[in-house]
Amino acid sequence: MQTIKIGVIGVGTVGTSVVNILKDNADVIEARSGSRIIPTKGVVRSLKKERGLDILLSDNPDDIVNDSEIDIVVELMGGVEEPFKVVKKALENGKAVVTANKALLAYHRYELQDIAKDLAFEYEASVAGGIPIINALRDGLSANHIESMMGILNGTCNYMMSKMMNEGVAFDDILKESQELGYAEADPSFDIGGFDAAHKLLILASIAYGIDAKPEDILIEGIENVTQDDIAFAKEFGYQIKLLGIAKRLDDEVELRVHAALIDENEMLAKIDGVMNGISVVGDKVGETLYYGAGAGGDATASAVVANIIDIARSGKSRPMLGFDRPLEHGLKLKNSDKIESKYYLRLKVSDEVGVLAQISKLFENNNISIATMLQKNSDERHANLLFSTHIAVEKDIQNVIKQIQDLNFVVAKPVMIRIV
Amino acid sequence: MQTIKIGVIGVGTVGTSVVNILKDNADVIEARSGSRIIPTKGVVRSLKKERGLDILLSDNPDDIVNDSEIDIVVELMGGVEEPFKVVKKALENGKAVVTANKALLAYHRYELQDIAKDLAFEYEASVAGGIPIINALRDGLSANHIESMMGILNGTCNYMMSKMMNEGVAFDDILKESQELGYAEADPSFDIGGFDAAHKLLILASIAYGIDAKPEDILIEGIENVTQDDIAFAKEFGYQIKLLGIAKRLDDEVELRVHAALIDENEMLAKIDGVMNGISVVGDKVGETLYYGAGAGGDATASAVVANIIDIARSGKSRPMLGFDRPLEHGLKLKNSDKIESKYYLRLKVSDEVGVLAQISKLFENNNISIATMLQKNSDERHANLLFSTHIAVEKDIQNVIKQIQDLNFVVAKPVMIRIV
Repeated sequence: MQTIKIGVIGVGTVGTSVVNILKDNADVIEARSGSRIIPTKGVVRSLKKERGLDILLSDNPDDIVNDSEIDIVVELMGGVEEPFKVVKKALENGKAVVTANKALLAYHRYELQDIAKDLAFEYEASVAGGIPIINALRDGLSANHIESMMGILNGTCNYMMSKMMNEGVAFDDILKESQELGYAEADPSFDIGGFDAAHKLLILASIAYGIDAKPEDILIEGIENVTQDDIAFAKEFGYQIKLLGIAKRLDDEVELRVHAALIDENEMLAKIDGVMNGISVVGDKVGETLYYGAGAGGDATASAVVANIIDIARSGKSRPMLGFDRPLEHGLKLKNSDKIESKYYLRLKVSDEVGVLAQISKLFENNNISIATMLQKNSDERHANLLFSTHIAVEKDIQNVIKQIQDLNFVVAKPVMIRIV
Repeated sequence: MQTIKIGVIGVGTVGTSVVNILKDNADVIEARSGSRIIPTKGVVRSLKKERGLDILLSDNPDDIVNDSEIDIVVELMGGVEEPFKVVKKALENGKAVVTANKALLAYHRYELQDIAKDLAFEYEASVAGGIPIINALRDGLSANHIESMMGILNGTCNYMMSKMMNEGVAFDDILKESQELGYAEADPSFDIGGFDAAHKLLILASIAYGIDAKPEDILIEGIENVTQDDIAFAKEFGYQIKLLGIAKRLDDEVELRVHAALIDENEMLAKIDGVMNGISVVGDKVGETLYYGAGAGGDATASAVVANIIDIARSGKSRPMLGFDRPLEHGLKLKNSDKIESKYYLRLKVSDEVGVLAQISKLFENNNISIATMLQKNSDERHANLLFSTHIAVEKDIQNVIKQIQDLNFVVAKPVMIRIV
């Protein structure tokens, strides 16, 4: 039986789980892969901390990437440029690479694909933790033109939105609770601002569409502005509110966006509660398929890392890293965010004066926006909340009308907009 | 660019879709596989029917399996022994094989694995149509010991149960409607008797556990006995009723069973309505993951067949057919059905006499069965329906008590039992 040696750069929560799974589950891993897979070395930031792992520890990534005995380098350092240098060197030294690092891929996936050439470079754990979505999209659905993808890609946001919907907790309170539970970071902006989900969406978009885009190229918004007023509207009209990563193809253009969204409560995706992740993928032949599971956590994420290691042990590089062996003859382009079409929900806080609704309605009309539903709720004696939903409209027009509404004297707070899917 | 030639044996609904997808989606298929994949020949039962496909048609499988130009044979004939002979010959002639034939695999998968040796033999479409569950289980979750699997594997049954639950339709009426819609066959016993789901479960069990079992080795029941009385009970206690394929590992034993089941309405699986399929897989490291999509239909099934073709074009045989390169050192055994443990629901129709409940309760007690809930509903002036649910009990004890209850004078109909998961 062949022996395959693993070096883990970054032995934190996930790295420790990788080492443990390779030992705990050595029986099935050997039977399935036909190889003895052994974690031999780890790189940590500080050698002082006791980790209880019987692998050789170092604080220098070179000790792994330059070790001729190591077959597969597992990169779990976090960050972008530093791990890029490290995995580049590993590939140049002829080693296969497995990473869970979505930020690295959001910025460098195409360069890495070029550098890797015939070497395996796998990254299942970078999107939705333990859910084998890369596998499904790259292999399982490869016969399809992907029409759309819609994903709950951030467990922190989904936990928070579920709590707000189901228990009526206010945003700030649930954020604090999430931080105490360890679901949200001390600085939560990367999660709740939508950036984490955006990194994952960009990876999926490469596999589905061959689209090379960076975070700064796409629409990214978070869940910070969602309040109990919006939740009340959602409940009234049969919606859930979720942070979604959305990709949609129309003709030769693909739109990519991350934002809070109102989604029909009967959709499977709307039924995913708590810290779980889920991705709905619609193919032109297969129709809708959906994938659900734990999007984070040491063992779930490590499950995906080890699956990639087993793949490589079985057959080295068995498919193109980003799913395409060569570019599409008629390639797809990223759609400008201004041109996105959607239904929209708007919440305006206004002074309770005569003529307010008429003026706002006029602005909608001037911007080609047609109102579908309207709900007025008095927030106090002098103010009212106006909740609108629109028929399909164009992003640019909505942004315009929001700007114009904001300038009206009787509008007393920044308008809140949530897209409806 | 390499050219790969495909022969399709059985050009019915799925076969026609396979040929069409290879043409319709040739752009993505070429870009993803790096190969030009061309369907060149088809085998049909009757050459008289016009099919509108520009491939060479024959009514003799030998014209494909003996054609030295054909690289991959797609078997979509249906049946067991006849396709076994055909694919055996194809493999002996050095061809890769892709099949959607679950019955063939339910009986011959281990022989086929032996015959295939280094040739690719793929079968993603044999379980849950377009959902890439084989892919997920064999590759994506390969780092895990699989603790359990629970699947809605038959769209016909799920459609019928959903209609009965949501619209109060009676079993016979919904069966007739399903037949008119083409969801159920003229002879529906293969679907509603649980056999179709059992074939699929056996395939999944091989990949998850390396268990070699045949349909006659496992517990298979259908949905024929479910009535609106049971639906009412389910609603009262927060359950859905589904036909489930269930696999569960405990120590070195695996139980495999297919039957109607009461499942908590809050489980993701319980939320899957209509003709859709879904499979929940629990791994020891990844936790629960769930896969959802169309389990049948020409295009959805063909999506999986073509994905397998692309896999083979990319890398030939890249993993062991049934997921194991070699047997587990400490192999798992099939659990005897008598030893299954579950909660149970029982519906008894009795004459409305004094002392009935006391006698029945005594029988439960004598068989070590502890009652969790009890509900009495009068079905007419002289009869009552007694609905029981039990705490965890052993299958053998339940079967015993049912036999004993059946022999009681005041029991006027065959008792109905549904397991609770």
